[in-house]
Amino acid sequence: MYPKSLQNLIDAFKSLPGVGAKTAERYALCILDQSVEDVEDFASSLLKVKNNIKTCSICGNITEGNICDICANENRKKEYICVVQHPKDIFAIEKTGYSGYYHVLNGAISTTKGILPDDINIKSLYERLEGIREVIIATNPTLDGETTALYLSKTLKERNVEVTRLAHGLPMGANLDYADELTLIKAMEGRIKQ
Amino acid sequence: MYPKSLQNLIDAFKSLPGVGAKTAERYALCILDQSVEDVEDFASSLLKVKNNIKTCSICGNITEGNICDICANENRKKEYICVVQHPKDIFAIEKTGYSGYYHVLNGAISTTKGILPDDINIKSLYERLEGIREVIIATNPTLDGETTALYLSKTLKERNVEVTRLAHGLPMGANLDYADELTLIKAMEGRIKQ
Repeated sequence: MYPKSLQNLIDAFKSLPGVGAKTAERYALCILDQSVEDVEDFASSLLKVKNNIKTCSICGNITEGNICDICANENRKKEYICVVQHPKDIFAIEKTGYSGYYHVLNGAISTTKGILPDDINIKSLYERLEGIREVIIATNPTLDGETTALYLSKTLKERNVEVTRLAHGLPMGANLDYADELTLIKAMEGRIKQ
Repeated sequence: MYPKSLQNLIDAFKSLPGVGAKTAERYALCILDQSVEDVEDFASSLLKVKNNIKTCSICGNITEGNICDICANENRKKEYICVVQHPKDIFAIEKTGYSGYYHVLNGAISTTKGILPDDINIKSLYERLEGIREVIIATNPTLDGETTALYLSKTLKERNVEVTRLAHGLPMGANLDYADELTLIKAMEGRIKQ
């Protein structure tokens, strides 16, 4: 129905997460109304992201240089490494006030998808353990995240590092009767003496 | 927080309708995971849309050539022109089985925004009236759409063409008590003898 170049753009938008035919159509028609300069900026920012963004050679975070801003910052607490699955998790952890360093796995061990420990950024973590007092595992509380956490916990303990994990339990502000069974079990297991 | 080129892409996504900071972030991180070829295709389709898409010299619809597919199709009913505000409205009308031609205003007369009849694609409609039996006005049932419809209806009648408008009334499948007052008034005014 649409001219070919417009249809191609609609298809490109459809590749984004959560974007269906109607939304993609709306985005593409909005692009038609934007100025040539804005669209050229959009196109060049797409290409620049793909060309300029690399993974930090130390921690695996996204960066434009060789080393990310966090690894380059000498004022953070050197004894702590927080292990996360994705770069965006860093921005969430940063909000808690944590001021140590990070290690980004860029994935998780998955038995169903056949992702093995060697397929993700784990090996370089072992090489960073000198002088580290605590490794905080902050993988997602999903099946793959849990598998990864168990594997990391076991292999890190063998290397004589203290390993901790983020607490699991009731989210703040939630009602007890809305919590799922697994969350409640975790909250009960992790109960704290007052 | 994010590297500059990633932040630029997030800002570009934010210019799309209904896309906030979180969604833009999600789109940009998804682009990071796409292959170089896919991202290059995306960027080039953005530029192509801006460079290749023009308005049809007859009806004002979007097209890659000089004349759109509908105007170029000789097998449609020549005596009918349906006037719509935007190219995407054509795709909606096409679904009704209408097989005449179209005229796209690319806007609507607006007293609040200061858009006058000369600012939208009306003049070329008057030049298309030879041999036309009926002009169907299908502007949106909004203030601006109604203003445009009134203006068109008046000026077209002066040129001795039959003018009709899409019926307004209760949408199919809706409950009477959910219909707003204006819709009910229109439905009452337009009641049909059984």
